[in-house]
Amino acid sequence: MVNIIRVFHSYSGENCKLKKKDLKELINSQMSSFVKQVQDTHTLDVIFSDLDANYDREIDFSEFAALVAMVTSACHVSFHEMQ
Amino acid sequence: MVNIIRVFHSYSGENCKLKKKDLKELINSQMSSFVKQVQDTHTLDVIFSDLDANYDREIDFSEFAALVAMVTSACHVSFHEMQ
Repeated sequence: MVNIIRVFHSYSGENCKLKKKDLKELINSQMSSFVKQVQDTHTLDVIFSDLDANYDREIDFSEFAALVAMVTSACHVSFHEMQ
Repeated sequence: MVNIIRVFHSYSGENCKLKKKDLKELINSQMSSFVKQVQDTHTLDVIFSDLDANYDREIDFSEFAALVAMVTSACHVSFHEMQ
């Protein structure tokens, strides 16, 4: 859990939130073994708007934690599919 | 993320779900640096029913991932309060 906070802080700005470019960098560098690289703007826009629950055009930590929960759950499903 | 799956699997039964006693053991041994020990039955019942989104009286991985997201978010808040 501490690692999740640490990773978030290494990409979030002064106000402890992720802008779109921060989210893209974080996903592509920290989550690449779990999710495909985010290349095109449309994919990023969809992910971003899905996560931005309060519509403030930034991703705060609890919104990011929801992404981690979703990706981890997806990993868990594929873990069992591989068995 | 892989650690979260690994921890879950070390407490979940054959059907890959946590019973109430499994959840208590997991929280008390794996999350003790983040949350208070769960001692009394009432507290455990409240946590369990909060997590058991599909009311099947067991905690599956996505329900557990929601707990991890909540606890991590709470840690993030207290991280900033300490600064």
